[in-house]
Formats: sequence, structure tokens, C-alpha cells
Amino acid sequence: MKDNSPIVSIVMGSESDIPVMKKAAEVLKEMGVAYEMRISSAHRCPDETALYARGARGRGIEVIIAGAGMAAHLAGAVAAHTTLPVIGVPLKSGELNGVDALYSTVQMPPGIPVATVAINGAANAAYLACSVLSIKRPEITTALEDKRQKTKAKLIERSEAIQNDPLP
Amino acid sequence: MKDNSPIVSIVMGSESDIPVMKKAAEVLKEMGVAYEMRISSAHRCPDETALYARGARGRGIEVIIAGAGMAAHLAGAVAAHTTLPVIGVPLKSGELNGVDALYSTVQMPPGIPVATVAINGAANAAYLACSVLSIKRPEITTALEDKRQKTKAKLIERSEAIQNDPLP
Amino acid sequence: MKDNSPIVSIVMGSESDIPVMKKAAEVLKEMGVAYEMRISSAHRCPDETALYARGARGRGIEVIIAGAGMAAHLAGAVAAHTTLPVIGVPLKSGELNGVDALYSTVQMPPGIPVATVAINGAANAAYLACSVLSIKRPEITTALEDKRQKTKAKLIERSEAIQNDPLP
Amino acid sequence: MKDNSPIVSIVMGSESDIPVMKKAAEVLKEMGVAYEMRISSAHRCPDETALYARGARGRGIEVIIAGAGMAAHLAGAVAAHTTLPVIGVPLKSGELNGVDALYSTVQMPPGIPVATVAINGAANAAYLACSVLSIKRPEITTALEDKRQKTKAKLIERSEAIQNDPLP
Amino acid sequence: MKDNSPIVSIVMGSESDIPVMKKAAEVLKEMGVAYEMRISSAHRCPDETALYARGARGRGIEVIIAGAGMAAHLAGAVAAHTTLPVIGVPLKSGELNGVDALYSTVQMPPGIPVATVAINGAANAAYLACSVLSIKRPEITTALEDKRQKTKAKLIERSEAIQNDPLP
Amino acid sequence: MKDNSPIVSIVMGSESDIPVMKKAAEVLKEMGVAYEMRISSAHRCPDETALYARGARGRGIEVIIAGAGMAAHLAGAVAAHTTLPVIGVPLKSGELNGVDALYSTVQMPPGIPVATVAINGAANAAYLACSVLSIKRPEITTALEDKRQKTKAKLIERSEAIQNDPLP
Amino acid sequence: MKDNSPIVSIVMGSESDIPVMKKAAEVLKEMGVAYEMRISSAHRCPDETALYARGARGRGIEVIIAGAGMAAHLAGAVAAHTTLPVIGVPLKSGELNGVDALYSTVQMPPGIPVATVAINGAANAAYLACSVLSIKRPEITTALEDKRQKTKAKLIERSEAIQNDPLP
Amino acid sequence: MKDNSPIVSIVMGSESDIPVMKKAAEVLKEMGVAYEMRISSAHRCPDETALYARGARGRGIEVIIAGAGMAAHLAGAVAAHTTLPVIGVPLKSGELNGVDALYSTVQMPPGIPVATVAINGAANAAYLACSVLSIKRPEITTALEDKRQKTKAKLIERSEAIQNDPLP
Repeated sequence: MKDNSPIVSIVMGSESDIPVMKKAAEVLKEMGVAYEMRISSAHRCPDETALYARGARGRGIEVIIAGAGMAAHLAGAVAAHTTLPVIGVPLKSGELNGVDALYSTVQMPPGIPVATVAINGAANAAYLACSVLSIKRPEITTALEDKRQKTKAKLIERSEAIQNDPLP
Repeated sequence: MKDNSPIVSIVMGSESDIPVMKKAAEVLKEMGVAYEMRISSAHRCPDETALYARGARGRGIEVIIAGAGMAAHLAGAVAAHTTLPVIGVPLKSGELNGVDALYSTVQMPPGIPVATVAINGAANAAYLACSVLSIKRPEITTALEDKRQKTKAKLIERSEAIQNDPLP
Repeated sequence: MKDNSPIVSIVMGSESDIPVMKKAAEVLKEMGVAYEMRISSAHRCPDETALYARGARGRGIEVIIAGAGMAAHLAGAVAAHTTLPVIGVPLKSGELNGVDALYSTVQMPPGIPVATVAINGAANAAYLACSVLSIKRPEITTALEDKRQKTKAKLIERSEAIQNDPLP
Repeated sequence: MKDNSPIVSIVMGSESDIPVMKKAAEVLKEMGVAYEMRISSAHRCPDETALYARGARGRGIEVIIAGAGMAAHLAGAVAAHTTLPVIGVPLKSGELNGVDALYSTVQMPPGIPVATVAINGAANAAYLACSVLSIKRPEITTALEDKRQKTKAKLIERSEAIQNDPLP
Repeated sequence: MKDNSPIVSIVMGSESDIPVMKKAAEVLKEMGVAYEMRISSAHRCPDETALYARGARGRGIEVIIAGAGMAAHLAGAVAAHTTLPVIGVPLKSGELNGVDALYSTVQMPPGIPVATVAINGAANAAYLACSVLSIKRPEITTALEDKRQKTKAKLIERSEAIQNDPLP
Repeated sequence: MKDNSPIVSIVMGSESDIPVMKKAAEVLKEMGVAYEMRISSAHRCPDETALYARGARGRGIEVIIAGAGMAAHLAGAVAAHTTLPVIGVPLKSGELNGVDALYSTVQMPPGIPVATVAINGAANAAYLACSVLSIKRPEITTALEDKRQKTKAKLIERSEAIQNDPLP
Repeated sequence: MKDNSPIVSIVMGSESDIPVMKKAAEVLKEMGVAYEMRISSAHRCPDETALYARGARGRGIEVIIAGAGMAAHLAGAVAAHTTLPVIGVPLKSGELNGVDALYSTVQMPPGIPVATVAINGAANAAYLACSVLSIKRPEITTALEDKRQKTKAKLIERSEAIQNDPLP
Repeated sequence: MKDNSPIVSIVMGSESDIPVMKKAAEVLKEMGVAYEMRISSAHRCPDETALYARGARGRGIEVIIAGAGMAAHLAGAVAAHTTLPVIGVPLKSGELNGVDALYSTVQMPPGIPVATVAINGAANAAYLACSVLSIKRPEITTALEDKRQKTKAKLIERSEAIQNDPLP
């Protein structure tokens, strides 16, 4: 699916964010959604970030996933330049366990929202992107529902296992 | 537009949440998006909440906005029963300034995301819903962009006013 | 005692919670209380969780111990479907040291209480379950009091040891 | 019912706690559960508190509800002297919004649990006491279930009202 | 002094920030430093904010004071477009007492610093601006030292007053 | 007793701290301990603060109580200049409910301790000063014990009152 | 000096606290102050703790240092039974980095103060004990002042070293 | 450049702070700014700290960078004795992840500002010092702008790399 034109764009503030943010890519791949990945920074290349965000809708992007740590302005900076849905992933980096990134991502002022997920919650950012896309793509609805069924079945199987072989 | 079939559903955990959550309704109305409002509770009527969430997509709902306070499970409980995008509004109630509701809304486990906005950020929940809807409704893109232009123009006007008449 | 019909049910949100939650099982075993263990999730299998909670009293369960991390809704979701006493164990997982789970577990709205213990406090959840059971089972009162005597004796012994051989 | 012998004892650290703690009494009264109220302090009258806790089971008390603020030791101090279930209500007083009381109440060491409810959650402490009592008193199970039905019905009624007359 | 060309620029994210931010203006006026005031927003008019920041040094501005609340990106967004010293004032707005703004302002990534002062610390932002300016303007050094002398003298006078007339 | 030579010195960072800090004076007066009051500031008159602290023991002072808010350095700055016991009262001022003052007062590095009491806990600072003084003044031991007896008696009386007239 | 009768008593809630609390013993030894060490628990042996605290002054103890973690009630429980100065050391244990222990130790209600030091600040607890003792023992004043001189000299020496060989 | 007379002074509270604080030195060196390094402590050698701060401007220092942990008073203590710009680096040490140092550094009272950077943000303290110096030294403006260009170019290069070789 990666040869298709991407409809989700994953952007992160630094190369060091890749280990967490690639989980978003993995989920999108599993769900059959074409995506692209970028590194951009609200502070170190603000003009490039603005250009990127302004051009996204025109290039066919429908959802943006932005991950950043500390004073995590990236998702907000992107949202300031597009009316596409922007999903923010607060990343744990620095010394505050990601609470700084959570507050910097979620506490946006009226008019410029960021759809925030859990600290380091890149996988859920991708599932949320799929939910958004599902409002016009029934096949993604189906993929999400299939995935949930599988997750549930696995959970029930594991529960039965520990019921039959209780601890300790 | 209210006589149209609603595409956004606003649900809240208690009648006392109306003063905050109605700001979402006001934004949707201004953006020309048909909506409905409900009161439901993840804890006091869990079955009704489940039924509501499971039926939402079938009834034509495309985005759900859920607001709740304290151990704010409502958005997560709704998201557990639908693959539609669910936007969570952590509400300030109880004694912890809404931090409890923020954590309970945003820290969702993998697979069941909630798009979280600021504490009491009902207006932004509505703007986010519009961004989601904009991926298939160009007129909402236009409405969002018009609104941003107006907000910006007002800001610039105010800035010029204080430049010409500086304080104190 | 495990061949007896269980009167305490231990449920957790994920298989990865077993290392912490099995401490509850160990205490119950030591106290001579029959228990069962389950994996269920408020978000990934909400219907199964509801069924489980609704059926618990009828199956002879008298106390439920529920452990979950992050936006820890499990104990509350269980409490929404039963009037049995539900003990919640906030689990440390994710990046917030369990504060998210603590708030999500303890800050329940009026009418649906969860008896919350310390973060990762699975052992105390079991002792609390025993206290609850003790109101109708004198042998559990005795077992609890014996255990406390032993703990106290060991503490006094250790205190005397360091008194006689003071540091450093 | 107040002329019956009390089975729940409500204790609080200071007379100034009455406005919050009396909500527990109101719920117990509504549920038909006989109770008593006391003021005691882990720090200002520790011996009386110890005597009270040690004598509680013998006097027919089955559940203790203890409310205290700041370095809220009362529930723990009571639990140290009884194996009855002790429910702790962290009270908001002082300058920390009750977070101090929450931590002081819930973070108990292994062996001496306190069943903690929300900050100022006195009503839920009483509902939790009823859940505990329900394991041997079917009429309390019924009272709890009736109350939940009524709460749910009222919620549904209110939801229908705002659906028919949506805001703003 | 206001007819002189401004060397400090005070910018804030919203008109509602004026009551706090004007304290910076008052201090600058007292210190004899020419300033200008602007309203700009990192999110609602990002291009104007970028233009403003990029042009500041060329227009003769030597220090920028930027105040914003919630996910307070303004100071960082300004700092991204200028190498002038940028002083950030985290403003209390929203429900988190300004902790969100503090983290969003101070936790900047390497390379783009913001000189952060206390929550709502607009007066200190101005004193800090004066300290910066003092490295090339001896008259500002003198003004700062005079002010400190006066503050100290007043403090000592007040201390003597309560020593002679002790409470209560 | 105020005409006696003071043995406790109460110092605070600002005149606005008097309403809280005078509670320390009231307790000392009740306990019959001679005291003095000062205003001094670690930042606004550091030399005077150093002189004051260095001279305290020589002037007959035996305990210093220091109250300050925000980045509350006063108690630490005093402790840096004397080996007398220094009791710090973190004051609530600014926007962080006194948590900033608590951390700034209590988290002292090894070698220079500050005996910290609760946020705004000026009364307890005075009781703690009395405990310190009691190691060489038996009459203060007696005064403290009398006060505790009276407090306990009042508490027991109030408890009996609500027992006889239970709520609601 | 350990064969002398102890005047400082170090008590801790659990044997696992020894690695931190022994730093208090080391400082006291260095300062030439006789001490004893005990293990006691506010919750697991409350009567022994009460007896210990009540008897301390009579046995010649002049200062008590109490260390405990989590819902750290030990220092408060000791202070409730003695009018001697009680120094509380909040210990880091459990999942909250010691903030729970800090709040539980410092936020004492009026009348029963605990002199709180930093989280895990056992060394400073001992220095504080020495400051208290210094009000009647000039040799301890001297020991404290000598120690400070040595610490300062070492610091100055290290500063000169890095000045002469600056980094990197 | 180190043989030039230093214009930035880096001071830290303890030798153990060197690994973090030397990052400030590295940045200054790269920017071509002469600096000196000192160890001083607001608490362990307060008089030396005062002398150092009072003499700084006279010795040609234009900016002071001060790093300290826990109840981090160093930056404030320095700022109390100079009107030079003082940049504070809150250091992570002790058990609170540096939040204590952040609050102790940033929450300064009016009149004595500290320009605070991120927890452990020594590199940014140096960049901020360069921004301050740039108001009178065009070559530092150029150095800062060159550095930003290089950082941006590297970021863009990395972004292109992951675009061409997307993950996973």
C-alpha cells in the first residue's frame, strides 16, 4: 500500500522520536492505509513546518499525526496552518515523564484544536486516524472492526487460560 | 440546520455538564453542522451508553463528542463500542481542577483511542469535529477557513488598537 | 482451598498485569480464601466485562478485585454492573507512574464507588477483601488477626536486632 | 432506623469536616442502614482513636468510614487497630486541593489497607459501605439496586428532555 | 519616553492577557525604557507572528517579552524566528493554574531558548529585560540599582515598624 | 512576656505575609514564649538577611521561624548563616497553591537543613519551636502538654455532642 | 560515643528503610551525638509505637528522627504521643517518588507539628537534630560550625580547580 | 578564545553538576564566547556567592548562568546581588525529577528575576546567553544564525532520508 498516494502524514520533531512514532506507521500499514513520514520542527524549521502543513490538504493528505516532546509545539504549529484533523502524540523526553508534552499538546486555545492521545501513544494516534478516515472509507471501518474482534478474541483466550491454571 | 439529520452527537455524563458542553453545540451551529445532544453515563447507565455508541454510525452520526468529569470514563466507554472518531472533553468537576478527567480521558490503552482536547475545551471539540468532517465535506473546510480568517482579522485589529494607544 | 467455589474474583485489564495482580492471589491463598482470576478489559471487551460483572453475585462471588493501568476504567466499569464491593488496584503502566490510574480509579462519581488501594497495591486489595469477608466469616477475622500478630512480632524482632547492633 | 444499633460508624478528624461527612450519613439513612457519628483525631486524641477502633467490631460495627484532611492519617490509624473494613474519605482542606489527603489515605503499606474513595467523596463512602454490608444483607442489595434504577431513570428522562429541546 | 523608538516589544496571545501583561509595560516605563505592545497568536495568526519576530531586530527591538496561557507556544514561536533574547511569561488561564503554560514555555528543545519567568510574572519579565539591556546601557544599570535600593529601604522601614509594634 | 528578651525570631519575606505569620506569634504568646517579628527578604535585602541570621544566636535567639512564598528561599538563606534550628513555613502566594514554596523550603541540600511545616502552617511552626525549646525548659513542656489536654478534651466533648444528636 | 546514653532516637517504618536512614546515624556519629535506632510502624505495631514515643522524653531522648514511605504516618504518629521535637524524613518507596510521603509527613494539622526535611533527606534530619541540641550544648554548635567550615573549604578548593582547568 | 577575558560566568552548586553544566560551556565555546566556570553554593558558602555575584559586572562579566538542583536557590541568590542578567538552569537531582528545582528557580518574587530554561537545559542557557550578548555583538548574532541554519539543514536532510526510506 505504500506505493499508493499517502493520506496520512506522520511528522515528528526529531529523529530521536522515530522509535516511538514508527508504531503509528506499523498500525497504518496493518490497517492498509498509505502514509508518509517526515521530520520537522516547530522551532528549528518553522517555515518548513508551516509550508508542509499548508500544503498537506492539497497533496491529498486527510489526517496529520504529529509527535513531539517537552514544550511540544509541533502539533499545534501544524494545526495553526491547516484545517485538517491534527492528532498530537505527546512524547516522553526530557525530565518530566511527558507531562510537559501532554499539557503543551492538549491545552490548545479555542479555534485551533489538536486531537491528543496518550503520552507516547503513537499506536492509538494511528487507530484514531483510521477512525477519522472511516467516515468516508467503509473498508477502514471494516479493518478496524476486524482488528477489534481479533484483539478481543485473544484477550478472552488468555483469560480462559489463567482461569484454568490459576495463580500462583 | 437543526432539522437536518445530525452528524455529530454530543453526549455528557451529567446534566450539570450542560453549561460547558453547550459551547460545542454553539460552534457546530455556527459552522452549519447538524448535531444532537444526549446525557448518558458510563457508570449510571452503562447499557444505554453502550447501545447509544453501537448504534451511532448506523444512525448517520460521523463524530461523537463526549464530555465527563472526575474519573471521566464516558469518552472511553463510548469508544469501546464504536469505531467512529470519539472526541473527549475532560471536564473540571470535583477537587482536582480536571487533571483527573484529563488523565482518565487521554491515557487510553492501545486500540481504543479518544481524541482528547483541553480541560473544559468543548468549543475546540466542536472545531475538531468539523476538521474531521471536512475530509469529505468541502463546505465545512470553507466554513473553518472563513472562521479562522475572521478570528485573525479581529486579532490584528485589536493589536493595532493597543499599538496606537499603548498602556498603561 | 482452590477447589472450593471462589468468593473473590480477581480481574485485570491485560495479561501484562499478572506479575502485580498475582500478589492478591497469594494473599488470598495464605488467608484461606477461594478465588478466581480473569482477564477482561473495559475497552477491548466491554460486553464480556459487563456480563462478568452482572453475573458475579449470582455465581457466589462476594468481592471483586479489579486492576488496570493508565485510564484505568476497569474497576469503575465493573462497579457500574454490580452492587458487590469492588476494590480497584491502580496499576503503574505507561509514563505517569500510575497517577493516571489512581485518579481514574478513585475519582468515581456519586453512586458507583470503587474501594481504591495504593498504586500497585494488589496485596492490600486482598487484605481489604478479607476484611470485607470478615463481617460474616469469623475464621477470616481470625486469619487476619493472626497475620497481623506475626507481622508485628517480626517487626519487633528486627527492631531489637538493630538496637543491639546499631549502625553504621 | 437510628434507634437500631448502628452497624456503620462514621468518624472524622475535626468538627469542621461535618458538612462533607454528613453526606455519608444521609446516604446511609436513605439506604436504611443504622449508623453512628464520632469526631476523633489520629493526632490530637490517638489513644481514644485506638480504643474506638479496637472496640468497634465488639460493639457490632461492621464498616468504619473515616474522613480526614491534609496529612490524613485517621483512616490508617483506625485500620491499624481493627480488621474491619475501613473506608477512607480524603477531605479537601489546607492548600493542596485534597491531593495530600488522597495520598495519605490511599498509599497504605501492605497489610493495613484503607478502601479509599474520591476526594470529599463521603456519599460514595456510604454507598461502598452498603455494598460491603450487602454480602450478608439481601435487603441492602435491593436498596442499592432500587437506588441505581431511580438514578438511571432520572438520567434517561433528562437526556430525553435535552434531545427534544436541544441547545443552545 | 514612549515617543522614543521602542527597544522592548511586549507581545501577548490575546486581548484578555492585557491586565497581567501591562505590568511589564509599567515597569519599563518606570525604568525609562521605550517599548511597544502587540497582540499576536502563535496559532491564530502564525504568519503575522513569524513576520513580527523576524523583523524585530531590524526595527531596533533588542528584547522581546511574550506572554501566553495554556499550551503557551507564543514565546517559543517568536524565538523560532529571531535570535534576539525572548522572555516568556506563562499566563494563568484555563484550569491548570498556569502549570501548563509554565511547562509549554520553559521546556524548550536545545537551540531555541526562552527566558522564562514566574507564572503571571510580567513585572519580572520587564526587570529581566532591563538587566539584558543594562549590558550596553549604563543608565539602565543605574535605574535598576536605584529601584533595588528603594525597595530595600521600604522593606527595612516596614520591618522596623512591626518590630516596634509586634503582633498580635 | 513580650518585654522579656525574645528567644524565638519570626521573620517573613514580605509585609503581605503578616496575616498568616501572625498565627505563629499568637501561639508563642499563648505558650508564654517571648518572640520578635521581622520582615526580611532573601532577594531584596540579602545582606540584611545574612546579618540578621548571623547575629541571631548571639542575641539570645534559640529558634528562627521563617515564612516565604513562591521560590521561597528565605528559610534556606537564613539557615545558610546560622546553626540555630530554622523552621520554614511555605506560604501560599502566586499561582501554584504553595507547592512551589513547599519544594523550595523542604528540598534543602545536605548540611543546611530547614525544618519544614505545612503550607501556611505558621501555628505549627510555633508549636514546633516550643518543642525545640522544651528540651531545656520544662515549663514549655508543661505548657505544650496542657494545651494538648485542652484540645483533646474539646474534641471529645464535640464528639459526644454529635453522638447524642446525630446528623442529618 | 555510642556507649553514652542516646539523646537522639532514629525510628523507621521498615527494615528496608535502613539504607537511607543510616545516613542520619552516620552524621550523628560524626557530630559526636549518641543515638539509638529502632524499627516501628504506625500501622503494623501502633501500640508499640505509642509506647515508644510516650516513653522517649523520660528515657533521656531529646530529638526523634522518624522515617517512613508512602502514606508516611510514622512521624505524625510519634508526634501525637510526645511533645519532643520530631523530625520526619519522607522516604521514596512505592511508585510516587516520595511525594506521597512528603505530603503525609509535612501537611500535619495544627497542634502536632513534624519538622520535615527533604525526600530521603536523612542526613539533613541529623544535622537538624544537632541544631536543636545546639541550643543547650555549645559543643554541638562548635561541631556544626566546624563541619560547615570544612564543607565550604572543600567547595572553594573544587571551584578553584575547575577555574584553573576549565571545561570542556 | 578561553584566553580572552570571560564575559559569561557559569556557576553551579556542586561538583556533581559538572556533567550537565559543561554542555553550556561547550555551546559557548562553539559560539566563540569566552567564559569561566565556578562552583559556589547559596547555602554552603553564601558569603562567597554574594561576593562573586557583586563583583561580576566589575570583572567584565555580562551574563551569569547558574545551575542548581533541589531547593535550587543559587540563581536567585546570585540575582539578589547583581543586576546583570542571570540565567537559571534547574537541575534534576534528588527524587522529584527536577520539578523542585524548576519551581525554586522560576517562581522568583517581583524585582529579582531569573531567566529560567528547561530542567537540565544547560545548552539552552548558553544559547540564551548568546542571544543576550548579541544585542551588542553582531558577530554573535551571526554565529547564532549560522548555527540555526546548520541545524535546520541537518533536520531537512534527515527528513528527506526517512521520506525516501519510510518505516517500518
